[in-house]
Amino acid sequence: INSKLPNVETSIFAKMSKMATDFDAINLSQGFPNFPSDPALIALVEKAMNDGYNQYAPLAGDFELRMEISKKIEKLHNHFYNPETEITITAGATQAIFTVIAATINKGDEVINFTPAYDCYAPTVELFGGKIIPIQLEPPYYKADWQEVADKISAKTKMIIINSPHNPTGMLFSEEDMLHLQDLAEKNNLLVLSDEVYEHIIFDGNVHQSASKFEALAARSFVTASFGKTFHNTGWKMGYCAAPEKLMKEFQKVHQFVVFCVNHPIQKAMATYLKDENHYLKLGDFYQQKRDFFLNLLKGSNFKIIPSKGTYFQMLDFSEISDESDIAFVERLSKEYKIATIPTSVFNEGGRDFKQIRVCFAKTDETLAEAALILKKFE
Amino acid sequence: INSKLPNVETSIFAKMSKMATDFDAINLSQGFPNFPSDPALIALVEKAMNDGYNQYAPLAGDFELRMEISKKIEKLHNHFYNPETEITITAGATQAIFTVIAATINKGDEVINFTPAYDCYAPTVELFGGKIIPIQLEPPYYKADWQEVADKISAKTKMIIINSPHNPTGMLFSEEDMLHLQDLAEKNNLLVLSDEVYEHIIFDGNVHQSASKFEALAARSFVTASFGKTFHNTGWKMGYCAAPEKLMKEFQKVHQFVVFCVNHPIQKAMATYLKDENHYLKLGDFYQQKRDFFLNLLKGSNFKIIPSKGTYFQMLDFSEISDESDIAFVERLSKEYKIATIPTSVFNEGGRDFKQIRVCFAKTDETLAEAALILKKFE
Ligand SMILES: CSCCC(=O)C(=O)O
Ligand SMILES: CSCCC(=O)C(=O)O
Repeated sequence: INSKLPNVETSIFAKMSKMATDFDAINLSQGFPNFPSDPALIALVEKAMNDGYNQYAPLAGDFELRMEISKKIEKLHNHFYNPETEITITAGATQAIFTVIAATINKGDEVINFTPAYDCYAPTVELFGGKIIPIQLEPPYYKADWQEVADKISAKTKMIIINSPHNPTGMLFSEEDMLHLQDLAEKNNLLVLSDEVYEHIIFDGNVHQSASKFEALAARSFVTASFGKTFHNTGWKMGYCAAPEKLMKEFQKVHQFVVFCVNHPIQKAMATYLKDENHYLKLGDFYQQKRDFFLNLLKGSNFKIIPSKGTYFQMLDFSEISDESDIAFVERLSKEYKIATIPTSVFNEGGRDFKQIRVCFAKTDETLAEAALILKKFE
Repeated sequence: INSKLPNVETSIFAKMSKMATDFDAINLSQGFPNFPSDPALIALVEKAMNDGYNQYAPLAGDFELRMEISKKIEKLHNHFYNPETEITITAGATQAIFTVIAATINKGDEVINFTPAYDCYAPTVELFGGKIIPIQLEPPYYKADWQEVADKISAKTKMIIINSPHNPTGMLFSEEDMLHLQDLAEKNNLLVLSDEVYEHIIFDGNVHQSASKFEALAARSFVTASFGKTFHNTGWKMGYCAAPEKLMKEFQKVHQFVVFCVNHPIQKAMATYLKDENHYLKLGDFYQQKRDFFLNLLKGSNFKIIPSKGTYFQMLDFSEISDESDIAFVERLSKEYKIATIPTSVFNEGGRDFKQIRVCFAKTDETLAEAALILKKFE
């Protein structure tokens, strides 16, 4: 058979996590916590299984969970999504993102994507015959150039994809960014896919600017989110998509054939767990402490560092240490120094190399201390 | 936005299950058991969560589980799938089926599909620009006409989809059917998608003819399977796909963007549970007893009945009871008689109405007895 994704190789995350295992390296590559999930949440899943929630959930998801999500978004962003018709629970944010693109992108459609970008958007757009129009975010601050966006919008443009807090850079979109986006989306009648999986992981008093917060933007946006990132269980594969009814209807048409519905006992557990807002409101402080702990230990190192504003990733600029490619540097780091990280060129259109690596600090303080000690050795 | 699936409505399964709730009817519509999962399996999931398997699984799935699946298939069908490269764990069989089609079907490709058919194949093919070429299975025995298949194969034909044991009819493909299929697939260089979710639910001493059992067929087939159907937990959403390395490579390229990976603790639990072959080998007897229990109670009713040979579905022909459409009959059954079933015309190309309804007998004996009592009232 002819490959429908001829340029796609094995996921960098799988590759690096394997390298970490092979070299017995500290794994700061793929984004997941190495500390336990809350036993209280595990107990809720156990309860749901023992209570008999082991058969198909409704297609859109457990209604109680959809209501809790609706309440959460209304409280945080002052926007009401009807839980009956505007929220769908998905098998992780990846499935939500895939389904948005599957439901909307046709052959020839152009999709604006800021780069560096998480690796799933572009190939999914390509799978449906769409074309990615990249907008480069330039280091070290990775600010969006909205004039460039405006210039690159054409009659073929169908959608803009954003991701704030931003993986891999830790950049945030400001209110001003969102207003620019809203303006352009309205003027050009575009859809927006707002990947907000790190919505609750935000530092230094910054506020998450959800697409759902801006009325005219919310009216044309699919917002995707992740319980795995928020509740420390990326392996449970649960997330959701929120969108206005007209868009959600098309999303659900595709969703039913992608997975039909998602894990029922976990949905039941999440519905209860979500009622306590501390379970997500304290997440920013929790990860800010980890970031600060790690960066303090790296003080005086030869990496150039601009602290991450959100996500659980930190970029380290190694240009004063080596002029290797980021891929070569990451390989050497894995093999010789036993630390697995991600070369950020893999997120960049055309593989542009900014001599930066991405480290995940969703790790125990012990792991972070061990890693920092090694990283400080670089002269 | 323009709908990419303009002809798709809400899933009949969601619709009928909702009707069942609304009318407080016995739900024999959507296919799922109404009895508990094995507590031993639930305990294994609990153990996996408490042992810390709460982060991303490998992209292809937990390796131990893939090994157990490989062993199972080798034991049952004498075909070896390399667990490293030829098996991927999916979020239910639906996601496996979706991903097979996504990875293989291009605009203009023709896909041969026997009808009546489970409802996800055709719209998924359509989503990727493919065209369904239906082959009608005629009641009451729903035998495949391989000459008709041969006649309908064209230069554009890319794939044949089969499903045995067959939902909704309970029909089985014989060894002879599989040899015809193998012959046609080889001669015309076609791919095969063999949906085998009811592989272990097979009655009266019949043997499941898996595509993996026929060497030349296995070499060009994607086999999809479901743990939800086999282990009585359709709401856990776990299944798998097995295929030769070349095909599996393309499957995985798409799989990584559809879901990346699937629920980790459940995979760990399934790996252990699968080691005891009684957990699946006894399933046929278990459901045969249910079928027989139900059909014995229906003896003397005015439904014409040919016993199901596999799956947990039974077709009931109501042509001697009423000349309503099957949809009207099913509605009346729900509203007036409080039994939800599925009109089989929804599975038929063009909505052809054979005056048959599908009932799911994966229910407690109590539920089946109650339902049979009502169904016998029809004169
Ligand atoms: C789905 S695996 C990747 C996890 C992640 O979000 C990342 O490491 O960027
Ligand atoms: C995925 S919901 C449908 C379940 C099923 O296989 C059926 O009822 O036919």
